[in-house]
Amino acid sequence: MDYVYGPGRNHLFVPGPVNIPEPVIRAMNRNNEDYRSPAIPAMTRVLLEDVKKIFKTTTGTPFLIPTTGTGAWESALTNTLSPGDRTVSFLIGQFSLLWIDQQQRLKFNVDVVESEWGQGANLDILASKLAADTAHTIKAVCIVHNETATGVTNNLAKVRKILDNYGHPALFLVDGVSSIAALDFRMDEWGIDVALTGSQKALSLPTGIGIVCASPKALEASKTAKSVRVFFDWNDYLKFYKMGTFWPYTPSIQLLYGLRAALDLIFEEGLDNVIARHTRLGKATRLAVEAWGLKNCTQKEEWFSDTVTAVVIPPYIDSSEIVRRGWKRYNLSLGLGLNKVAGKVFRIGHLGNLNELQLLGCLAGVEMILKDVGYPIKLGSGVGAACAYLQNTTPLIASRI
Amino acid sequence: MDYVYGPGRNHLFVPGPVNIPEPVIRAMNRNNEDYRSPAIPAMTRVLLEDVKKIFKTTTGTPFLIPTTGTGAWESALTNTLSPGDRTVSFLIGQFSLLWIDQQQRLKFNVDVVESEWGQGANLDILASKLAADTAHTIKAVCIVHNETATGVTNNLAKVRKILDNYGHPALFLVDGVSSIAALDFRMDEWGIDVALTGSQKALSLPTGIGIVCASPKALEASKTAKSVRVFFDWNDYLKFYKMGTFWPYTPSIQLLYGLRAALDLIFEEGLDNVIARHTRLGKATRLAVEAWGLKNCTQKEEWFSDTVTAVVIPPYIDSSEIVRRGWKRYNLSLGLGLNKVAGKVFRIGHLGNLNELQLLGCLAGVEMILKDVGYPIKLGSGVGAACAYLQNTTPLIASRI
Amino acid sequence: MDYVYGPGRNHLFVPGPVNIPEPVIRAMNRNNEDYRSPAIPAMTRVLLEDVKKIFKTTTGTPFLIPTTGTGAWESALTNTLSPGDRTVSFLIGQFSLLWIDQQQRLKFNVDVVESEWGQGANLDILASKLAADTAHTIKAVCIVHNETATGVTNNLAKVRKILDNYGHPALFLVDGVSSIAALDFRMDEWGIDVALTGSQKALSLPTGIGIVCASPKALEASKTAKSVRVFFDWNDYLKFYKMGTFWPYTPSIQLLYGLRAALDLIFEEGLDNVIARHTRLGKATRLAVEAWGLKNCTQKEEWFSDTVTAVVIPPYIDSSEIVRRGWKRYNLSLGLGLNKVAGKVFRIGHLGNLNELQLLGCLAGVEMILKDVGYPIKLGSGVGAACAYLQNTTPLIASRI
Amino acid sequence: MDYVYGPGRNHLFVPGPVNIPEPVIRAMNRNNEDYRSPAIPAMTRVLLEDVKKIFKTTTGTPFLIPTTGTGAWESALTNTLSPGDRTVSFLIGQFSLLWIDQQQRLKFNVDVVESEWGQGANLDILASKLAADTAHTIKAVCIVHNETATGVTNNLAKVRKILDNYGHPALFLVDGVSSIAALDFRMDEWGIDVALTGSQKALSLPTGIGIVCASPKALEASKTAKSVRVFFDWNDYLKFYKMGTFWPYTPSIQLLYGLRAALDLIFEEGLDNVIARHTRLGKATRLAVEAWGLKNCTQKEEWFSDTVTAVVIPPYIDSSEIVRRGWKRYNLSLGLGLNKVAGKVFRIGHLGNLNELQLLGCLAGVEMILKDVGYPIKLGSGVGAACAYLQNTTPLIASRI
Repeated sequence: MDYVYGPGRNHLFVPGPVNIPEPVIRAMNRNNEDYRSPAIPAMTRVLLEDVKKIFKTTTGTPFLIPTTGTGAWESALTNTLSPGDRTVSFLIGQFSLLWIDQQQRLKFNVDVVESEWGQGANLDILASKLAADTAHTIKAVCIVHNETATGVTNNLAKVRKILDNYGHPALFLVDGVSSIAALDFRMDEWGIDVALTGSQKALSLPTGIGIVCASPKALEASKTAKSVRVFFDWNDYLKFYKMGTFWPYTPSIQLLYGLRAALDLIFEEGLDNVIARHTRLGKATRLAVEAWGLKNCTQKEEWFSDTVTAVVIPPYIDSSEIVRRGWKRYNLSLGLGLNKVAGKVFRIGHLGNLNELQLLGCLAGVEMILKDVGYPIKLGSGVGAACAYLQNTTPLIASRI
Repeated sequence: MDYVYGPGRNHLFVPGPVNIPEPVIRAMNRNNEDYRSPAIPAMTRVLLEDVKKIFKTTTGTPFLIPTTGTGAWESALTNTLSPGDRTVSFLIGQFSLLWIDQQQRLKFNVDVVESEWGQGANLDILASKLAADTAHTIKAVCIVHNETATGVTNNLAKVRKILDNYGHPALFLVDGVSSIAALDFRMDEWGIDVALTGSQKALSLPTGIGIVCASPKALEASKTAKSVRVFFDWNDYLKFYKMGTFWPYTPSIQLLYGLRAALDLIFEEGLDNVIARHTRLGKATRLAVEAWGLKNCTQKEEWFSDTVTAVVIPPYIDSSEIVRRGWKRYNLSLGLGLNKVAGKVFRIGHLGNLNELQLLGCLAGVEMILKDVGYPIKLGSGVGAACAYLQNTTPLIASRI
Repeated sequence: MDYVYGPGRNHLFVPGPVNIPEPVIRAMNRNNEDYRSPAIPAMTRVLLEDVKKIFKTTTGTPFLIPTTGTGAWESALTNTLSPGDRTVSFLIGQFSLLWIDQQQRLKFNVDVVESEWGQGANLDILASKLAADTAHTIKAVCIVHNETATGVTNNLAKVRKILDNYGHPALFLVDGVSSIAALDFRMDEWGIDVALTGSQKALSLPTGIGIVCASPKALEASKTAKSVRVFFDWNDYLKFYKMGTFWPYTPSIQLLYGLRAALDLIFEEGLDNVIARHTRLGKATRLAVEAWGLKNCTQKEEWFSDTVTAVVIPPYIDSSEIVRRGWKRYNLSLGLGLNKVAGKVFRIGHLGNLNELQLLGCLAGVEMILKDVGYPIKLGSGVGAACAYLQNTTPLIASRI
Repeated sequence: MDYVYGPGRNHLFVPGPVNIPEPVIRAMNRNNEDYRSPAIPAMTRVLLEDVKKIFKTTTGTPFLIPTTGTGAWESALTNTLSPGDRTVSFLIGQFSLLWIDQQQRLKFNVDVVESEWGQGANLDILASKLAADTAHTIKAVCIVHNETATGVTNNLAKVRKILDNYGHPALFLVDGVSSIAALDFRMDEWGIDVALTGSQKALSLPTGIGIVCASPKALEASKTAKSVRVFFDWNDYLKFYKMGTFWPYTPSIQLLYGLRAALDLIFEEGLDNVIARHTRLGKATRLAVEAWGLKNCTQKEEWFSDTVTAVVIPPYIDSSEIVRRGWKRYNLSLGLGLNKVAGKVFRIGHLGNLNELQLLGCLAGVEMILKDVGYPIKLGSGVGAACAYLQNTTPLIASRI
């Protein structure tokens, strides 16, 4: 039943789906249940409260939609906007590209602000667009918090500041797929109107829940938004929330229990500690890349992502060969370069329920692969650099002191 | 972590989600994997071939969409129809009602053919509508094969015959959510254009895969269908099928392995034996109901469903009390009466990976509940009637002979 | 990997190993851990305290030995007795026979008190032997609390009374394999010196822990007992208890977590409620047997066992055919008749984490099998009789009220 | 339920219990079954055949005893020897010490051949003892193949040669607990009479099966061996083997399925490839130790163990502090120094289902710990040395080429 068995564990370092912790696997190891019994609504009620904490919102309304990140995007857009609405959307990599493609196919009038891949969203252009838009034709600003293809993290606080500077009423829609529960994310403080993520990312669950959180302003917008929608319609959820049964259609029982366990682990560690762990692992990875003499696809430090690092390799090497060898020889799963950076970068995902030694095992594996493909690497150099940093900064495990 | 623990097993007899067999639970008990490695496409390729068998199609194209039945409906409709298109749709219970509601919200011009709840689709009216429709304004006939709310199975072969009689080119769209892999279903033979089911029904998996199968004619229709769609767009799948990577967005690794195991169990038992088992359990349930002196919500034998039985109870009893007591006292999960039949019927789901003794335990439980709520039942009567039939008809377990 | 797959659940009604509840299966679904880390001793310390509760002892010392019931027997005997020591031991069925065989092979001088199979221990003979034994040559009285082969429960309180009557200092050793955590058992109150059970019985775990509990008097005896022992030696445990590391050799990490979960379930339900549930299921089973017109192997009500019922069948039927058909046709696992009652009785185990509807499914299955093998049964009769009793006596599930 | 949760995976590098591969965890994730049904004997029959392959024997008789390694030892000794029998036994570390202690407590006349800890068995003394023993008073030579406390592997072929040189008929009993299925082991070729291992070692299962394999000569010896035994008596097994029911008492159903899965993984990889992988990982570990400037506890290369490395640290560091920090800070489980080498060595277990990157993560962790405790280490040095070797020698994963 395992199509391609290899001895030992698979080292999963794609930026999603990520490693599921054993307690979460355990929690999902169960039969189905009647989702109309009193048990599931009771559980859901608490889950909805708790899931708001990872968005850092008290005023938002969360939806646990049985879908993927792509479906979560669609839910965010169709519930708040109408065909023809103007959006400003930043193209900085493959996932922002796909979201823009979705916006276009959903018939919005997308004002694309493009940056070179490896750069963050061009917020100066946003500022000038907002400045010019005195008529408030811009209905929404859509931004990917962390572009998974290039390892670029955008500055959401700044986006909010710009919107505020111009007193612009546009909705602020954020793809937090590879950021929420891993990077600093503050829905309420930053005035985000819709934020979304997928269960298979920092929450470290299987794919299957698109988690969407809507601000009161977004909920208000949903009352007039004319985009056609049924499966993704928040209104159906809201009706069932009111009835206290919560589910317009059948949820995955297993994922609900899994989400419960995943949140419990995050709360036990402390959300801010989880984020600090990601900061630490991101920095360690970048130090290794530097020690290898390789370049980060991300062009400036301000955009460095703590959940994924896209490593640029010399032109004489095909980066997909690196990924292929990882899988074929070392049971290591790395992320491919996508689209414009295909063949040029490979990606190390370092998000979710992961620790220092797991990452160091991966980095050691990358070193051997680099040697395999003819890159002149000093074996141990990257691991040593990462260790030097981690040995200084890794805290004791709170429950074991 | 179990919100409302009771000793012993939960007896799950709602018509979905249904009992997951242990080998399937086991198969899903795993970490995430990189869905872009060679392993997942290799597995998917075979899954797509194998899943066609449960539809009894060789010409159809299946889609394993990370969604629920509601999403599968939306996929079927938006890929084949355009806003304003006329559909003929049969309203015979809660789930057909919801599908019609979806059709209306998706802006189709729905020609609703209503029957009393407990009756099947009125095919005479279909015939007259088709006869009158010489201009072929009817773009699709939409029918729920098995209405889960009332336990009514419609005759799909007859629908096809009527369509053929009038040489009508309308698409034939079928909700097979509570029928496929449990009831006789023949996509190719009956000329069905889109058929769909959900993983949590007869396949006995968790919720999370909407399985949609499209005929060549449906695929052709998708090229011109103007309904706005992204997440549910078949075209994205077809592009990735061609590339051999299969997934436009992240699938649930666990559900793929679960589906593999679920299909293996069905093939090991033999699909026709699986269907015969459902026929047997359906019949046994109806014999028990009869022995109890209660009425089946389904008004005629030709519509009797072998996957769910809706039992009508006397007006002096509230059927939701029956469901409540089952859960509170006997760890038995029964289906509520929905909408028009709320309070009047309760439902026994008998689909999925289920055997005779499980059903008999449920029937014994129902007997005690009926006594609990004051219905004058002879305890053992229904179980005895069911046993008499099952003792005659249950085959030896093939692997144990 | 499943050697003989059948659709639906296996109905496991042998008197051990018994059904494992899902939360326990989940708890054991894990990787190994270092048993010398601080975590496992911390867990063990609490487990040892908690396990005493199911023995109803505060003064006993428990040992969680990685072995089966047979090993637990050996541990009880070799730690308290010396070769040549006289024991009084009751032969009333297959398991008491095997224990006596063990005693003989361990070179004790076994004074066997035999009863007809189906009868309890002959305590009158015990009284007379104790009366005669003014020299206190009898070092131990060994009794099986619940003889699993015949469904006979012995009266331990009476044994204690007899010992006290004669002021006899013999050790009181009890096999509680199919009783502890299911039947009324009071180690301290009844002055039991060694009591033991196996994890796969009422605790509803996999096989693998022999749980032995020793009174202070038994511990004292272990200091001079000359039986050769190493693996089973309590002293090695006691040494590690003192050091706080608890384990002289590697325990099963999975079973420790499983035991934790199993005890949690028992405590959540309440030990006395667990016992009451067994009383209820035992009584229901016997009512069914009576309704079928069959005889209980147990000859008097005072010996009726609430964990296993041995059903005598007419001589023209071979009881192993009943077991065989259960397995081959109905996915039902019943217990064979053993040794003297082979072919004559079959056994229904009703112990462990089991509820009413599970039992009723089993009873319905037995009815069909009886019909299969030509016994003139009125189908539904036994289930009806059991239902009549259970419908009156089953409490609401506490967590769901 | 997890007593001391830490983020990410636990890095388990004690020399047992070891990491369980996911497919094995999955295989054990199941309810109990009736071990007297036809399924379990059918499965057992094949298991017994297959388990012989990891001993490299065709003539041996295997026993799967529900016990630990300590119990397996006891089974080996009590079935072949009688109280008073003279054994020659090598004391080279903690586990050989414990086995000798067991031999003494079982009343054998143990002729202890002691070496300094860190050295292998002194086979010259064996030769001289055998030479002197023309009366054949030596009944057995007992040797631990791989002393887990010091990382010393003894040369079994040489022991056989010495026995043959002197034509000595002594039984050749081998503790293969941390060697079988990991190191080169040839029961038949080396004329081993009893070999044994535990499930939680190289087989990568939970604790719970003591696997003992007896040569025809050992079986013959068991007919006259006078050691008292019941639970560990081979004869009970042999009786049930003959009957085809295989189990004198209840086995762990879960461990049987787990063993099936574990053997399948070994056979899929190829036993010799498994052994080669251990050779590779052992060598890589030693290269790291060397790069760190630390000494291996094992004094000569001929004794280097490929399943565990005991690392000697400078006297100013307490090795238990190293283990403590691994667990408290890096979620890394290392082995303590035991008895004579307590505080002086820590141990890295590298046996079982393990791969290169897992080991490299561990080695990186050890480097950080060494820095933590004040050892002047160049971070990355050991990992680099290990990588240099592994990058040269790691084969492609066969199933992925």
